[in-house]
Amino acid sequence: MNIGNTRAAARVGDSVDAIDTPALVVDLDAMDRNLSAMAEFARDRHLRLRPHAKMHKSATIAKLQMAAGAVGVCVQKLSEAEVLADLGVPDIYISNEIVDAAKLARVATLAGRVELAIAVDSRVGIDRLADALKAAGTSLDVFVEIDVGQGRCGVAPTAAGTLAHQVISHGLRFAGLQAYHGRAQHLRSPEAREAAIQHAATLVRAAQASVTRAGMQCPLVTGAGTGTFEFEAASGVWGELQCGSYVFMDRDYADNEYAKHAPGIDHAPFEHALFVKSQVMSRGASHAVVDAGHKSHAIDSGLPRVWRRNFEFGNGGDEHGILTLAADADSASTPLPQLGETIWLIPGHCDPTVNLHDRFIGVRGGLERGVVEAVWDVDTRGCVN
Amino acid sequence: MNIGNTRAAARVGDSVDAIDTPALVVDLDAMDRNLSAMAEFARDRHLRLRPHAKMHKSATIAKLQMAAGAVGVCVQKLSEAEVLADLGVPDIYISNEIVDAAKLARVATLAGRVELAIAVDSRVGIDRLADALKAAGTSLDVFVEIDVGQGRCGVAPTAAGTLAHQVISHGLRFAGLQAYHGRAQHLRSPEAREAAIQHAATLVRAAQASVTRAGMQCPLVTGAGTGTFEFEAASGVWGELQCGSYVFMDRDYADNEYAKHAPGIDHAPFEHALFVKSQVMSRGASHAVVDAGHKSHAIDSGLPRVWRRNFEFGNGGDEHGILTLAADADSASTPLPQLGETIWLIPGHCDPTVNLHDRFIGVRGGLERGVVEAVWDVDTRGCVN
Repeated sequence: MNIGNTRAAARVGDSVDAIDTPALVVDLDAMDRNLSAMAEFARDRHLRLRPHAKMHKSATIAKLQMAAGAVGVCVQKLSEAEVLADLGVPDIYISNEIVDAAKLARVATLAGRVELAIAVDSRVGIDRLADALKAAGTSLDVFVEIDVGQGRCGVAPTAAGTLAHQVISHGLRFAGLQAYHGRAQHLRSPEAREAAIQHAATLVRAAQASVTRAGMQCPLVTGAGTGTFEFEAASGVWGELQCGSYVFMDRDYADNEYAKHAPGIDHAPFEHALFVKSQVMSRGASHAVVDAGHKSHAIDSGLPRVWRRNFEFGNGGDEHGILTLAADADSASTPLPQLGETIWLIPGHCDPTVNLHDRFIGVRGGLERGVVEAVWDVDTRGCVN
Repeated sequence: MNIGNTRAAARVGDSVDAIDTPALVVDLDAMDRNLSAMAEFARDRHLRLRPHAKMHKSATIAKLQMAAGAVGVCVQKLSEAEVLADLGVPDIYISNEIVDAAKLARVATLAGRVELAIAVDSRVGIDRLADALKAAGTSLDVFVEIDVGQGRCGVAPTAAGTLAHQVISHGLRFAGLQAYHGRAQHLRSPEAREAAIQHAATLVRAAQASVTRAGMQCPLVTGAGTGTFEFEAASGVWGELQCGSYVFMDRDYADNEYAKHAPGIDHAPFEHALFVKSQVMSRGASHAVVDAGHKSHAIDSGLPRVWRRNFEFGNGGDEHGILTLAADADSASTPLPQLGETIWLIPGHCDPTVNLHDRFIGVRGGLERGVVEAVWDVDTRGCVN
């Protein structure tokens, strides 16, 4: 896709030192290991993996995930699905509701081009979806979303059967249940996350019973995130995992506590693979200012962490970050960085951070002495509608 | 400029109802009144107005500001300056420091194309800037930034003379002092903001004295923001105002208290002119979910406010917002909105919200019955480097 406004921060073959700042940099070695680890986890447990492309917003990474075994990807927005389809991603699930008739007409058109699925949680939404598909002469898979603790979209588990029946009464395919517990992902202790997912599993079983009572099968339960997937996997209820952040592993997920021997998982959590390269552009007596603020990294889940340096990152506004010595730093052995020095930041939340940038600068060989191997567009950046 | 990834949410001539959601919508009537009010304020007081284009990121709006009397615009980033210059904005001040040699070479090139100015706050930065300009054979205006309470960039006032002298010793033009107090902008009471700016004025005078002692004149002091500009204007110290947010007036600025007869200002604060149009896409028993989350509006300065409806906006993550009845709402007379209903949001902070979108949808005739008059690219969206 054309990205007109900004110049790439680096070219393939550049050294890491030559990457202009701020820039969104991917450690490709770490990303590859993360991709493999999750693919292996799902394969070993005979689970479908459908990673969430709302996180990376990249057709290139979606294809890498599918090459490693993913059945397709999820998105949250129709415009994301349209762009990924244009770029050759063949199997896309809009894991979110759409009730606007003009948007649903586009959904129906898209369903003629790729394997498509969508979530529903209302009679109005199902009726309008059916009208749009009938008008276009296309079909797709429909998942009924149930609320398993998120308190956002989705119906009560006991209402699942009624909606599933409405889906098939229109001649649409009821593909199963959408059951994602976003609030569980960042409960810090593994015990708290496990308990939340066990409760969610109880709600999913109630929804499955509701579907069975309405005279239907429930082909698949899809959901889970990077903070909880081992618990969904262990439950025996979910058949498909939607994790997204494992590819890049942001600061907020790293701040979770992970059990050494969590049920069903026998490898360490994922590695940080997404960074903002920044540079010191001003120095005070007891602080340094870098050229990255919250136009370079999202702060909805807190501020970035400074990578491998004992500095605190303070909010300096849209275009600046303020570094000070960490409370436990020894000022003699930890001098503040000098003007021009590179500072690597680990974003608090990967999804909206990626959405701020036009390109990933992919580095092979590590952040210190690596080389730029790839420059990838953030294909669905800005696709909010 | 090409914007390749996203489709416009509306076309010129569309009704407001037809604007796809979420979309960044400008009430052009309100914007025009804001532009006029600030231009008139500066003109009446014989002050230069150089609005901050880091906020609107639009060459079109920059030109409207200059047509109304602004001498040029400010930006924070070199890439913003380059794009605005490409689009015909003739006079640009990078009100921020750059110390990277590769970037400074680009600064020097740009100085050959437009009237350009830049801020400095270090000997290293001045030396490298001088080298770059010498190599390119170009020139620009140099402002020495002093810290007047922000605690970010800028030198102590007493160091201003030394840096100004270094500037002229390289044969560069010392244009004056950059003195912006960002932390004062959102102190809620006008008395607190006035006191902060009076203190800043004391520091500016100390810096002016330091420059005079070093044997130079201080041609201009530039700074001020939408929360404090009437106090900078009243001080007699500042000669140029850099306000940005007055064009759109976000929720955070609206939450300031304004004195009815603040010194030097005799009109009301500005009107809300920037909105995110959103739509209800899921309904619970006691909440409604809209299709706009923090990929559609920045939340660094808090959540959006719902426009002219008595609902609270709750954080629903990247793609969703959760509406509930306001605490003081009467649930009988204030029903929750239905599926598909339009909800207008006033963003907490305009600058990073604009930066999330590819286009402004400009509406004439009000948000309820207006018509799309303009679709403008957000020209410097994503220009972080």
